[in-house]
Formats: sequence, C-alpha cells, structure tokens
Amino acid sequence: MSTTPAPLPPGSTIGILGGGQLGRMLAVAATKLGFHVHIYCPDEKSPAAEVARDFTRAGYDDDAALEKFAASVDVVTYEFENVPASAAEAVARTGTPLRPGARALEVSQDRLTEKKFLKGLGIDTAPFMPVASEAALGLAVEVAGIPAILKTRRFGYDGKGQAVIHDEDEVADAYAALKGAPAIMEGFVPFEREISVIAARGLDGIMMAYDPAENVHRDGILRTSTVPAGISGETRDRATDIACDILTALDYVGVIGVEFFVEKSGHLRVNEMAPRVHNSGHWTVEACHVSQFEQHIRAIAGWPLADPTRHSDCLMENLIGNDVDGWQRIGGERDCYLTLYGKKEARDGRKMGHVTRLKPRA
Amino acid sequence: MSTTPAPLPPGSTIGILGGGQLGRMLAVAATKLGFHVHIYCPDEKSPAAEVARDFTRAGYDDDAALEKFAASVDVVTYEFENVPASAAEAVARTGTPLRPGARALEVSQDRLTEKKFLKGLGIDTAPFMPVASEAALGLAVEVAGIPAILKTRRFGYDGKGQAVIHDEDEVADAYAALKGAPAIMEGFVPFEREISVIAARGLDGIMMAYDPAENVHRDGILRTSTVPAGISGETRDRATDIACDILTALDYVGVIGVEFFVEKSGHLRVNEMAPRVHNSGHWTVEACHVSQFEQHIRAIAGWPLADPTRHSDCLMENLIGNDVDGWQRIGGERDCYLTLYGKKEARDGRKMGHVTRLKPRA
Repeated sequence: MSTTPAPLPPGSTIGILGGGQLGRMLAVAATKLGFHVHIYCPDEKSPAAEVARDFTRAGYDDDAALEKFAASVDVVTYEFENVPASAAEAVARTGTPLRPGARALEVSQDRLTEKKFLKGLGIDTAPFMPVASEAALGLAVEVAGIPAILKTRRFGYDGKGQAVIHDEDEVADAYAALKGAPAIMEGFVPFEREISVIAARGLDGIMMAYDPAENVHRDGILRTSTVPAGISGETRDRATDIACDILTALDYVGVIGVEFFVEKSGHLRVNEMAPRVHNSGHWTVEACHVSQFEQHIRAIAGWPLADPTRHSDCLMENLIGNDVDGWQRIGGERDCYLTLYGKKEARDGRKMGHVTRLKPRA
Repeated sequence: MSTTPAPLPPGSTIGILGGGQLGRMLAVAATKLGFHVHIYCPDEKSPAAEVARDFTRAGYDDDAALEKFAASVDVVTYEFENVPASAAEAVARTGTPLRPGARALEVSQDRLTEKKFLKGLGIDTAPFMPVASEAALGLAVEVAGIPAILKTRRFGYDGKGQAVIHDEDEVADAYAALKGAPAIMEGFVPFEREISVIAARGLDGIMMAYDPAENVHRDGILRTSTVPAGISGETRDRATDIACDILTALDYVGVIGVEFFVEKSGHLRVNEMAPRVHNSGHWTVEACHVSQFEQHIRAIAGWPLADPTRHSDCLMENLIGNDVDGWQRIGGERDCYLTLYGKKEARDGRKMGHVTRLKPRA
C-alpha cells in the first residue's frame, strides 16, 4: 500500500532549475513558508538567484554540478520545460524527488509527443502532422489547408521557432528555415478566444484549479490575461476537467498551465501545456489569497493545496521591452499592482514585468 | 523653493540597516518593484540577507563599513529603532539619503525624549518621570501611585528592560536591577484596550493610514492584532490624526507604527512609536492590496503612496517560540495564511512567524 510522504517541514530547501522571473516568484513564495531556496541556472545574472539563499551557476549538461545541487536540497522543481532528460536523470540518481516528474518534461518539451499524449487521452488539439521532409510538409499543407503553422518540435517559446505558411509557395523556404530541426505542422484553428487553466495537483492526488483566464497574444507573446474569461460556465468546467485529466494521467505534482483554443461553438482544443507556473497565472498573486507560486510550493513540498478562489476580477498586462518605461505612471495608478523582474536590459520582446489591475468581483 | 526629488527608478538599490524578519519582508516588497536590496547587519544568519542581492556583515559601530555600504546604495532605511546616532552620521557623510531621518531615530530610541516630544505636540502619554536615583524613583512612585512601571530609557523591546513595581518595598530592588542605566518611571494607565496605527508619509508630504489594529500583548510581546479594532469611528479618526501629527512634526518619510492605550472614555494616550514597519501591521500583507512593506518602500523611494484600504477583516497571530511547531495544522487551515521567518532555533519568546486569518469585511 502506498502512503503519502510526510510534508517537508519549514527549514527544508527547495531546489529550482532555472533562474528567471518564474523562479524568482517561486523563491519568494517558498521563503514565505519558511523554506530555503537553491537556484540552479547557467546565467550569471539571475532574477531568481537574487532572492534565494543559494545559487549554483552551471549548465544543464553538467551532470556533476546537477548531482551536487540535487543532493543538497530536499526537493527539485523547475521553472521551464526544456530541462534536458539527462538533467532529470542526474537528479534521479541522487534520490531527491523531482516534482513534477520526468514524464511531464518528456511530454511537454516535444510538440509531437505532447499532441500524441493528448490524443491518447481523448483531448482535442489542432490537427497536426510530423514533418520529416519538404515533401511531407507540402503534403501536410495540402491536406490541412492554408494557413498552416510550422513549428519546431522542441525549444519553442514566446513564438520562437514558428512560421505561418500562408501560401503553398512558402513551403520550400519554411522547410529550409528549420535547418533540419524536427518539426510539426499544425492546422489553423478558427478560434474565437484563447483561455488557460492554471491547476495544481498535490502529493495526495487532490486537485484544485484557478478560474480560467482569457489571453491575448501578439507576435506569439502573451500580452494580457483577463479574469473571468468570456466563456460559459459549461466551457469553464470542461476546460478544468481537461486540465485535471492531464494532471492525473501524468501522476503530476505541482502547478500546470494548460492553454486552450475556444471555438465559436464552445468546443475546446488544447493548444499547449507547460509543466510549471505560467505567465497567464500571474494575476493570482493579487486576485487570490494564495498565488500559483505558493500553490506550486505547497504541492511539491507535500503540503495540502490552498483554496484557489478569486476575490477580485482582474486584468494582467505584461510589460514587454520598453513597456517598462511606463513604471512611473503605472506606479501611481489606483487599483494597479506592479511587479518587475529586476532585468537590466529592456530588449525587444523581453518580459520585464507585469501589472495587475483589480476590480470588485462582478 | 524646495521641490520633491524624482522617484528612484527600478534597478536602484535599497539599503536596509538590520537583518531580521522586518528587513526580510521589506526586501521582498522592494524586489517586487524591481529594486535591488543590500542588507547591513552584524549577524551571520540573517532572515533578510537570505532574500537580498547584497549583504554586508558588520557592526553598527563600524563607521568605515557603514560608509562603504551607504555609498553603494541609493537610499538607506532601517528595520529597528536602535540604530546608533553615529551610524546615521556615517550614512549622512556619504550624501545618501536616510529615510526616515536621524531625528525619528533620536526621538524614538529614548523613552524620555519620545515622551517629551509627544508632550510638545500636545499628545497625551502615560504620566512619566525621569529616574536618576533611588530616591527619585521612590518619590516618583509615591506621586504617581502603584502600580508603576520602571523602564530603561533605551534598548527596550518585546518587554525587555521593564519592571512593574507593585509595592513600595520593591523600589530598591527595581532600581538596583537597572545597574545604572538611565530610566523612566511610567504611571499605570487603566486602559480598556490597546490599538496601533500604521501610517505612512511620502516624500511629497502626502500621508495615508491603515485602519487601526487592536492588539493583545502577553509578557510584553505582541500576541494578536485584530482588525477592525473595537473602537468608535471618532476614536479611529483621532488616533489617525495623532499619527499624522507625529509624521508631520518629524518631517517623516516612510511607515511608522504608533501604539495607543484606549481608556474607557475613548481617551487616547500614545504608549510608544516605532519609526519603521511594525509587527501589528503584518496583516496588511493579506488583508490589503498593498502591504505596509510595499508602502514603506514606495515612500522611501519617492514613489506615490498606495491606497491602504482593507478588503477583509482579519486576525493576525504571532507564532512565538514553539508555537511554530503548529505549522502543519496551520498550513492546512482554510482562510489562514502563514508566514515563517526562516529562523532555525525556536527559543522562548522568539518571534518565529505569524499567521493571518481573513474573513469577509463586516
């Protein structure tokens, strides 16, 4: 008979693979519960390391550094899905638990594996086909129709590694641009809106979900999340059920972000999933009593999940690149809460912070 | 004509004198607004340094270290009132602003100076007399009546440096226990309840106050703060006005905590004031959209103050010494939010964390 392990006591150390803003907000949440935090990342300047007690600067391919890191902490988690399988194996060798587990990484870091996994659960996605040659791409575009989206199978984020094919003449160039990277062709879904569900599963198998957010992307980058989303109660419940089906199938521990296309009929297709806290859940810091960050720390530490009820309606807006120059105006606005990530250079397309605007729950 | 200096931009560094839990919660709030944090404190293990980018471990009498610290940051603040005058002078020599200023420290770190300052503003306190000899103490007790409270003028906190005189026979022993420390005798105030006001003043002179909390102390240590306090609207307004009078008189920048005795008639006497964020304001993290910690950082950075409106009623309970062993039960309670300070040893009387329980605003 399997029993749930005892919760990690305060004073334990949480190890986080990745040192960006998600790691930073996780570190703050972990510290509030009395945990110590150890960040592992290859970059010298890390928004997360700045607020963590310990920092290992090393690459994700440095097995010796990874093993030393994992052996020094009580649980390992991650803030991005492109953790290599070899890194997960290095953690496993130390006996320190990795939460969520290696299977969640395997599924979510390859678009083809992810789509097949979802299909296996009876969950709809965009139509997809693996693309192994220019001829295969041409055929795929012919079958699925125009426009179609060509995506690398791995290492895509914020719209990187994607190209829209508007015309059959573009097939050759699009295929060449891949430079041999394994790819997938996705048919276009005529969606009415995009939503995401931030859900969590505890070590005891109990699941909780925040209300879905309605998301607007531009140039492949999330711009705004609005809660509540403009969907029916039925659609909300189905989206939540799908997120829970995914969590259960992966025997998942922690917070997951699942993005959906909502068609005019209300039909849902999963766009993608991220085995981590998610940009479209940042509003939970201000609009809920327990944020997605504390919820994730609770889950991976084996603590009971907290009530994800939202006390306010809200609009979360990302500050991309030079948007951050508006800090002074935003900092003086009423009912408007600013979070900045401590990054020095406001490069184009770089997420520098976000702002959450609250209004009373309708 | 004086003009308000420009607000400190994100990416600036906030220097904090003191490395305890108040510094820790200030550091987290500063980081959220994109500031870097530099902690200065003599202790190797510092709850605040754990979440700050920079840490100087040195004594408050080390002028060279203080000057180097102050020169490396954009503004200096403090999380405790016993910063020596010489340390404030060392900061001043570098030209880096100290907020709140040296006058706030001078007034609040000596009980006699504080009482005289309040008297000068027409604010009532407990009756008091300086005690310079055993004979003077005997006379003071005779005039003020029994019980009376003998307190050292400096370095008292959490009930330390205090003795209650219940009988005139105790005068000699109480005086001897001072070991020559300058002291003050306070007459007993027959109060009905204790409240505190957490207020802030910006660089532009604008002032904002949170709703008063009703506080219960045991053995001189704060146990609980309840909001709203059981006082009339009139009493609330008078307490807030007194806090603002103090802020104005000190040309104060930052958050202040002012503790009051409330007599049965509603009459208010200031018990003491702390030129910093205050334990009886920890509930603002969960029950308000902007906490006392962010409010303090906003003030000292020259940002506009935020709306201190409370969205929920609440009860904040300190976890003292072994109370912290209840983390598992508390962590599983609904509408109950835990904050732990990352201290290893749960010594008697040591503040290890706190818990805030919310309920809808009545």
